[in-house]
Amino acid sequence: MSAQKLHLGIIGAGRIGRVHAETLAFRLPDSQIVAITDVNREAAQAVAARCNIPKVVESSAEIFADPQIEAVLICSSTNTHADLIVEAAKAGKHIFCEKPIAYNLGQIDNALAAVKAAGVQLQIGFNRRFDANFARVRKAVASGEIGVPSLIHIISRDPAPPPIGYIRVSGGMFIDMTIHDFDMARFLIGDEVEEIYTAAGVMVDPEIGLAGDVDTALIVLRFRNGVIGAIDNSRKAVYGYDQRVEILGSKGKIATENFYPNQIVVSTGDTVYKDLPLNFFMERYTESFVSELQSFIAAVMEKRPTAVNGMDGRIPVVMALAARKSYDEHRPVRLEEVNVCDEQQPVGREAVNA
Amino acid sequence: MSAQKLHLGIIGAGRIGRVHAETLAFRLPDSQIVAITDVNREAAQAVAARCNIPKVVESSAEIFADPQIEAVLICSSTNTHADLIVEAAKAGKHIFCEKPIAYNLGQIDNALAAVKAAGVQLQIGFNRRFDANFARVRKAVASGEIGVPSLIHIISRDPAPPPIGYIRVSGGMFIDMTIHDFDMARFLIGDEVEEIYTAAGVMVDPEIGLAGDVDTALIVLRFRNGVIGAIDNSRKAVYGYDQRVEILGSKGKIATENFYPNQIVVSTGDTVYKDLPLNFFMERYTESFVSELQSFIAAVMEKRPTAVNGMDGRIPVVMALAARKSYDEHRPVRLEEVNVCDEQQPVGREAVNA
Amino acid sequence: MSAQKLHLGIIGAGRIGRVHAETLAFRLPDSQIVAITDVNREAAQAVAARCNIPKVVESSAEIFADPQIEAVLICSSTNTHADLIVEAAKAGKHIFCEKPIAYNLGQIDNALAAVKAAGVQLQIGFNRRFDANFARVRKAVASGEIGVPSLIHIISRDPAPPPIGYIRVSGGMFIDMTIHDFDMARFLIGDEVEEIYTAAGVMVDPEIGLAGDVDTALIVLRFRNGVIGAIDNSRKAVYGYDQRVEILGSKGKIATENFYPNQIVVSTGDTVYKDLPLNFFMERYTESFVSELQSFIAAVMEKRPTAVNGMDGRIPVVMALAARKSYDEHRPVRLEEVNVCDEQQPVGREAVNA
Amino acid sequence: MSAQKLHLGIIGAGRIGRVHAETLAFRLPDSQIVAITDVNREAAQAVAARCNIPKVVESSAEIFADPQIEAVLICSSTNTHADLIVEAAKAGKHIFCEKPIAYNLGQIDNALAAVKAAGVQLQIGFNRRFDANFARVRKAVASGEIGVPSLIHIISRDPAPPPIGYIRVSGGMFIDMTIHDFDMARFLIGDEVEEIYTAAGVMVDPEIGLAGDVDTALIVLRFRNGVIGAIDNSRKAVYGYDQRVEILGSKGKIATENFYPNQIVVSTGDTVYKDLPLNFFMERYTESFVSELQSFIAAVMEKRPTAVNGMDGRIPVVMALAARKSYDEHRPVRLEEVNVCDEQQPVGREAVNA
Repeated sequence: MSAQKLHLGIIGAGRIGRVHAETLAFRLPDSQIVAITDVNREAAQAVAARCNIPKVVESSAEIFADPQIEAVLICSSTNTHADLIVEAAKAGKHIFCEKPIAYNLGQIDNALAAVKAAGVQLQIGFNRRFDANFARVRKAVASGEIGVPSLIHIISRDPAPPPIGYIRVSGGMFIDMTIHDFDMARFLIGDEVEEIYTAAGVMVDPEIGLAGDVDTALIVLRFRNGVIGAIDNSRKAVYGYDQRVEILGSKGKIATENFYPNQIVVSTGDTVYKDLPLNFFMERYTESFVSELQSFIAAVMEKRPTAVNGMDGRIPVVMALAARKSYDEHRPVRLEEVNVCDEQQPVGREAVNA
Repeated sequence: MSAQKLHLGIIGAGRIGRVHAETLAFRLPDSQIVAITDVNREAAQAVAARCNIPKVVESSAEIFADPQIEAVLICSSTNTHADLIVEAAKAGKHIFCEKPIAYNLGQIDNALAAVKAAGVQLQIGFNRRFDANFARVRKAVASGEIGVPSLIHIISRDPAPPPIGYIRVSGGMFIDMTIHDFDMARFLIGDEVEEIYTAAGVMVDPEIGLAGDVDTALIVLRFRNGVIGAIDNSRKAVYGYDQRVEILGSKGKIATENFYPNQIVVSTGDTVYKDLPLNFFMERYTESFVSELQSFIAAVMEKRPTAVNGMDGRIPVVMALAARKSYDEHRPVRLEEVNVCDEQQPVGREAVNA
Repeated sequence: MSAQKLHLGIIGAGRIGRVHAETLAFRLPDSQIVAITDVNREAAQAVAARCNIPKVVESSAEIFADPQIEAVLICSSTNTHADLIVEAAKAGKHIFCEKPIAYNLGQIDNALAAVKAAGVQLQIGFNRRFDANFARVRKAVASGEIGVPSLIHIISRDPAPPPIGYIRVSGGMFIDMTIHDFDMARFLIGDEVEEIYTAAGVMVDPEIGLAGDVDTALIVLRFRNGVIGAIDNSRKAVYGYDQRVEILGSKGKIATENFYPNQIVVSTGDTVYKDLPLNFFMERYTESFVSELQSFIAAVMEKRPTAVNGMDGRIPVVMALAARKSYDEHRPVRLEEVNVCDEQQPVGREAVNA
Repeated sequence: MSAQKLHLGIIGAGRIGRVHAETLAFRLPDSQIVAITDVNREAAQAVAARCNIPKVVESSAEIFADPQIEAVLICSSTNTHADLIVEAAKAGKHIFCEKPIAYNLGQIDNALAAVKAAGVQLQIGFNRRFDANFARVRKAVASGEIGVPSLIHIISRDPAPPPIGYIRVSGGMFIDMTIHDFDMARFLIGDEVEEIYTAAGVMVDPEIGLAGDVDTALIVLRFRNGVIGAIDNSRKAVYGYDQRVEILGSKGKIATENFYPNQIVVSTGDTVYKDLPLNFFMERYTESFVSELQSFIAAVMEKRPTAVNGMDGRIPVVMALAARKSYDEHRPVRLEEVNVCDEQQPVGREAVNA
């Protein structure tokens, strides 16, 4: 609508960086990508060619130094996120950063402090909040459509495990995969979890166990408001990406189904069948990637708080740490047991985006 | 088919006694009810009139003494079950007994010992095993249709809580309601649970809490074979009886939906809707009550083991005790911690009916 | 409830006769079968043994002469229906008669006149009116839930064609199979059809064509109130019995799905599937057979009009004749063109059971 | 992929012109819009600003004269289509033209002759062929997944009628709305219709009748291969856009459901409901608009025949004329009765894109 466009730089031209670049280039006319960088220069060049990005630069420093750039997308590997946030904040750039911010709370708090000091905006890439299903469920809870919630189930299963090499450096299933579900739990219920109990095991691939991780888990959440939740994770659902949620409330329940590539049903002499659901996040969450960047751009241009702020990025990491500690110690763990870095910013109701 | 009919006596003419009487009278031509008794004589007379039962007798002792009666249905209140089993066994009658056998393991073991000594047959009223949905799920697991199972969810919610007076004497939610789900867990997976963790609370009615019970629970099960399970219970689902299960396996998942009174969908200017699911167990499990008695009659007449034996009645009580202990002590509890009465009959794989 | 029972005689111990006998014997305590007869005495004896029927008699005449018998079920072959109705009426028996009453209108009018003269009650076996789906659709139309109807679709497909020998004597697809759909069309819309156009062919089995019949048809109905309808018939749907209806109204639409033996869904690496729908009318319409006899018994005992009267039996035959004439002459045919026998009883709104 | 881009001009900046412009600008990197024109210059300018189109020109003549432009999109009003095709062809431009080509066959044949003479490519805007549902149904028929087809149903209902002013000039429901369904019928079955029977009426709005049109129809199709079909049209379905198809074949059936904005189900104390389906073609067929232009661009660049050729544009007009004639004359009408303009190009199997 507005002739005004937000000028952006992109750091990281891997899978998610490319998705965001294409979204900005082809779906969001209010944005303009000024430059892109990646440690793999060829990847950056390929994305630039595909998306008409005028500059491929050598380093994130060049992005931060570019006066035309108002905001940056941090799509590099997780271990670089916290430092890049600090540098971007110092350079006065607004920041969209992929999840998680970091693997430990010290780095996260450091990054959030820099953002606060610089007064820039920060949005964390919890795209599922923008998905049509999850947004509708949140609306049902917030509006009272299902009354006061008491039980929540989150089913979140990947079609296949990532390469074992990735698992070794990913921080483990709770931080690389469940983190989205922790965000969903807070977002959908609109309250904070205070205790977690994890039952988990290795049922998909023994190699994952040898790498020190689990591949199957059932994580029980106790919310401050009394709601009880379960997150069901598996690294492998042969039928495809399984992303569902169900909430029971005093006035009813709301449940979601997966999305399918078509709406056909075939009835033969053997069975009544349909085709498999959308296989993975690139297909399943396509539109949510558009909406989350649209929301970020609008927040920056209209100087409003972003929809997913720094605390929204921090708390799921606390939850992942608690989930792992519960698994290791075979007992329920309260979040305050692992939330040790930042006494001044307790995990509290005021942090929830409802 | 056979001109031979099994002659039965019924003890208890309450809700479930009446259901069984009608089933025998109108649906199962291979059976003949000889006599019925109830502490409330009027109730017994009403059922007898309705179902053409020739004799209404004063006591269970008269039932046991009747030489024409080959088998008895124990449908009286739970606190009488164990003693009646002992008496029936001593009288040489085959026994169908409603669940649970008793609230404590000592009584149960006493009853099972009497059955064993008498050499009579015993079937426990876990009717859900005979339901079309649950039987089909069991078949999918047993046949390998979904591969090796890893995760199971059981959703089991009542439309409304029972009267508070009943809750005070029922033994609590875990033993009066979840017991069916404990049975389903063992039956569907075909293995034993070794550890239970309970997250529960009072979210439906504070009166239930004052009565010392919970009304909402999420119970995590660890099976010996590594499968992780969750039972979701609520005393109140405003939309009706919610009875579903989902199992993830290495080759796929199987999930059930509720049954509906019809298969209509109305699309209006507001929503696309259907009518509510069948409201409670009398409607939902009608056919399973027929099948379980059919199975019992066939087992007795063909001198085969019953489909739900004494151990199948005992183990869910152990699970209920463990679930409560976990709730009380706020930690995962192993079944052996509560399974203290009968060291000679450990909870073992050989006990599972697969 | 009432100690009073209706005493019935059954004429015909074939497939549907046996279904009705079992229903009366095992599901409807308010009825008592006094006698049964069949030209095949063995068939009658088998049903009598199964259903505890005290008398197997030699002829329908004995049934009519039995003073204990208040009502008769005519379940013999179609060519005998009209004469049996006349005899039953003369004997003062109330009558439940399977559809169709006869293949030609002269016989039908003769039978209906006898019923009227005798003042007995007559119900025709259009059981689908008592099915949970169709009854719910009728309710939605009658209550205004979907507003004023404009379009109706009836899908009615058998799992497999009957033997070719049956097809040769059945009166053809329109009278032996579509007749139920003609009844549904009138019942659901609550108005009369005035014109029919038939597109039909032989696509299942050429033998059916050689026998002078069709096996696939699309029949367009024009109702007096302007509603346009389509009946879709096939003698063969490999996936099972397909019985659906959809009505569009000014305030919405209502559509039905088939009934399934269970409510399971399996997701594998290939497809997401469920088991086939209930295969044929014995499974699909079980409960409707109970309800229609219950309704008949109640109507007789309470001296109320039956739910499906003689005109409801006559009009679908008129529609079948019009459908065939349209097919033969390749043009739309008005019902008055074939409704030639009984000028005094025109096909009119007053005949509709709404 | 290719650095090569197809250079296009757009004629018409109304609703569909704008959709196509946005698709080319934001979704299809292989295309470049060079210029746009519209009789309403402001509309053209608005689209140009939105989609970064460098030139807004005064007339289609300027588009045709521009040597940079290789292909044109004709998105102007229907009465201009045929002449614009002729001019575009003479200018050597490849042509994408919205449906219908014209209201009468003479104009259509004139346009097709010009295309043939010029050797340019022509694609007609039957976008539904590119929809995920319909493409999947076609695949099921073509691959034999459901065997030999015998019956097809096409449900096609708009959420609300267009303004009465539009209806007066649109050529009537059969040519402005049903034309898509006629195309679907041919496309899905892969054969030609030879006879049509129309039952139709005015049930939505009497004004539509006064304008000489109908608003509700059931159109029976007889295909050359024996398949029987029904198209169900209504100008008004209060629940939204209703676009479904079902085909019965010798090995099974395939049926489609509508698309919904989300996959949620809410169960309350009253009903089990979901939100309404996508309301109209802009939402429902979004992706098909992308795919059809992608297909057109690829066909032009790779010098392959387009997926929807001139005869595919012509035959549905013949069908619309036959449908109207059947309605007017109240009898089945063979397509050859109305297909009078071009004896040299009979409607034949070779015209089908299977």
